[in-house]
Amino acid sequence: MIDQNHIAALTGILGDKGIVTAEADMAAYQTGARYDAGRAAIVLRPQTTEEVSAAVVYCVKNGIALIPQSGNTGLVSGSTPDTTGAQAVISLDRMTQRFDLDRDNRSLHADAGFRLSDVNRKLEKHGLFFPIDLGADPRLGGMLATNTGGSRFLKYGDVRRNTLGIKVVLADEEGTILDLTSGLRKNNTGIDWKQVFIGTSGSFGIITECVLNLEPLPKQVATAYLVPASGAHVMPLLRAMEDRLGAYLSAFEGISKNAVSAALDHVPSLKNPFQGGNVPDYVILAEISRTWVPREGEQSLDAVLESVLAEIWEGDDATLADAFVGPAHEMWSLRHALSEGVKHSGKLIAFDLSFRRGDIMAFCDRMKADMPQAFPEVTICDFGHIGDGGVHFNLVVPKDSASASDKAFEQRLRDWVFAIAVSDFNGSFSAEHAIGRKNQAYYDLYTQQKIKDMAKGLKAITSPGELGAVRFG
Amino acid sequence: MIDQNHIAALTGILGDKGIVTAEADMAAYQTGARYDAGRAAIVLRPQTTEEVSAAVVYCVKNGIALIPQSGNTGLVSGSTPDTTGAQAVISLDRMTQRFDLDRDNRSLHADAGFRLSDVNRKLEKHGLFFPIDLGADPRLGGMLATNTGGSRFLKYGDVRRNTLGIKVVLADEEGTILDLTSGLRKNNTGIDWKQVFIGTSGSFGIITECVLNLEPLPKQVATAYLVPASGAHVMPLLRAMEDRLGAYLSAFEGISKNAVSAALDHVPSLKNPFQGGNVPDYVILAEISRTWVPREGEQSLDAVLESVLAEIWEGDDATLADAFVGPAHEMWSLRHALSEGVKHSGKLIAFDLSFRRGDIMAFCDRMKADMPQAFPEVTICDFGHIGDGGVHFNLVVPKDSASASDKAFEQRLRDWVFAIAVSDFNGSFSAEHAIGRKNQAYYDLYTQQKIKDMAKGLKAITSPGELGAVRFG
Repeated sequence: MIDQNHIAALTGILGDKGIVTAEADMAAYQTGARYDAGRAAIVLRPQTTEEVSAAVVYCVKNGIALIPQSGNTGLVSGSTPDTTGAQAVISLDRMTQRFDLDRDNRSLHADAGFRLSDVNRKLEKHGLFFPIDLGADPRLGGMLATNTGGSRFLKYGDVRRNTLGIKVVLADEEGTILDLTSGLRKNNTGIDWKQVFIGTSGSFGIITECVLNLEPLPKQVATAYLVPASGAHVMPLLRAMEDRLGAYLSAFEGISKNAVSAALDHVPSLKNPFQGGNVPDYVILAEISRTWVPREGEQSLDAVLESVLAEIWEGDDATLADAFVGPAHEMWSLRHALSEGVKHSGKLIAFDLSFRRGDIMAFCDRMKADMPQAFPEVTICDFGHIGDGGVHFNLVVPKDSASASDKAFEQRLRDWVFAIAVSDFNGSFSAEHAIGRKNQAYYDLYTQQKIKDMAKGLKAITSPGELGAVRFG
Repeated sequence: MIDQNHIAALTGILGDKGIVTAEADMAAYQTGARYDAGRAAIVLRPQTTEEVSAAVVYCVKNGIALIPQSGNTGLVSGSTPDTTGAQAVISLDRMTQRFDLDRDNRSLHADAGFRLSDVNRKLEKHGLFFPIDLGADPRLGGMLATNTGGSRFLKYGDVRRNTLGIKVVLADEEGTILDLTSGLRKNNTGIDWKQVFIGTSGSFGIITECVLNLEPLPKQVATAYLVPASGAHVMPLLRAMEDRLGAYLSAFEGISKNAVSAALDHVPSLKNPFQGGNVPDYVILAEISRTWVPREGEQSLDAVLESVLAEIWEGDDATLADAFVGPAHEMWSLRHALSEGVKHSGKLIAFDLSFRRGDIMAFCDRMKADMPQAFPEVTICDFGHIGDGGVHFNLVVPKDSASASDKAFEQRLRDWVFAIAVSDFNGSFSAEHAIGRKNQAYYDLYTQQKIKDMAKGLKAITSPGELGAVRFG
């Protein structure tokens, strides 16, 4: 346990501002974005990599378990302490000093405490951005530790793909600082160690700084709602769009009728964009974008999109039942309201799944077929990033049903969905939310023993101290 | 040493076709693409992952060192045996059975023995390709093991970015097969283990199968030679092109006057494309590409490129001294002749360096300034992938000079260039050729001890047996 001596020593290392012990002040650091609340022994708020290192040395030597916390916007209880009251939270929220733009390298070396929105606001005047598009507004360290994906993955990839370097503190007795921030785009001189720390929830080290790839800001965007002729036509439609549009295609999001309806029902500001108000069974939000504005006499981007859709429409495949181009802001506002809508339509049990792209619709069909018998009170409100195989598979139980507050029911439902997604469809039980306490059991269940053994070995090599909410191996 | 009992046992495992012992037949497996020749005890040619595993079990149990070999087109002696005659080569050249295109997932599951050219020829009719553009024609396993880059890195990234999965055999007593071929694009359920095997020269495991991301084939390409006003204008020019063209920009290659002249002198089929035959000090080959053909009345891609260049030309930055759009095939033929030209202009001492992009020209300037004093007989014939920071820094010594055959001279020159590139400019001593025996000493010299210790630990976790030409840790 943390006693007064520990507090005094850690205050000596981090200063008064670097320590939080008052229960009221710790509350925000103890409560996850969506799930549960734990209890922290203390919250550490270092301001530099060196302070992180010094704090880690003290904690490792004194057997104090550390939970790294960044923006604390995650959905799997990866950044909050457990309920024992014995773990220390080490927050990155004061690490917002370094912000070095390298315009020639199209990269940014930044402290891990900046929020995504801050980063992109600061970059806007340079015509650049960090191209990860999320509903939440995490800090950079957590984005790297969870390898966040988002809606423009199809064009720009995930955080892993856009990370050129990191600085990371290991939980060993030396508080080793690994400086992997050379920022080179092409470098093959051994193991690419940063990969071990990306997407592993802070259990192998605390990412304190990063070098990020930046992309030129799109200057034009065009969006359309596409109604596929049937679920079986979704993939041919995606293929047709990709073949023609290549790197222009920046989003291809699928939305089920139930998800649209939930949003329309519960987010009053939304307009129903569909003819006669008839929501189709499934709709695709497609976006294309480019970095320049056409000169006079050149084709607008809306015209490009319309021309491509006309070509698909006139083709032999009959993939489209309907399609209409519209203003990007309006079209995305429905997409962005889905989470909110689903959350308000009952007790939400959310899954962050992914599949080979061709398996998404088959999985959804299987669920629609089997759910009524297996869990009759559940409504499926799925939507997702069809272009990258991700599905936010949201299940809603009426608030007044007995199951809504039945933990065992939720557990049975989770086990059942994961078994089909992972075992039958070779899918992932965590597409873009990574692992936390929330899905630790599924890591344990679905990871082959050899991989778990290797992970355990890797933990001993990197951070033998108690670090992170996830147990690897 | 390999005796008759070993040969009999391995023949039992791999069959007659799976074993080569005759000296004449082993020659091709013993000699590297550019450097040196070693001596193999035996060459193993398994046809399936299971055969690789069985052969590995036998070799590990009997203490036989294994050198994985793929296309054997590498330039750093990473795929050939040393001169002891005690190492066995395990070649992937018969592993060309599985070739499963997943059109919906835009991915290919293939055995590691296919050559890049075979892969792309087979994919052409589907309008897809594996977007790694190289001078050589390696097999897939070696491409992954060295994480090859190439000329379109700027747009498509390296092999790492385009690898969705691998199957890998570990050099342990069980010949463990790690099946990481789910092919998911988005998956964050633990350590992304494939990253450990990509770019590490086969020392941590033998990649036997892979799942590759495919991209839609460009249907239109436009190219231009750009002459920057000076070396200092190269980066502003790149920035101007990127800002305007974004993902359209598929190559931005820099070529020095000496490299152009070497190609023109030694490759007779080349035409001199420059006005009055005057080769500029430095020239950029820029390429843009897109996946569709314009309809009638729409702007051609040449017109797009011309319009962007006009905008840059008319801008305030005066980055351009000259620019002309021309046929892609002709423009690339000069670029592709550079290696050949440089090779024939004297004794070639080649470096595969990379830098933060903004440091490339400064490094080249430093070399031009210091070389005449340090190594007066050396001519610098650099060219490279400016868009990703890579530089093929080629040095040529007259064939008739005493230094041309002086090993100690070459060693001094290498040490000197690397010291400046790595220590003064924080560059990489191997941008895209990875590590082999050829540059093992520089890994040992320039890798921090902690990283070497971690690599050694990782080796013990994955492949404790003797595997690969590179010693990690």
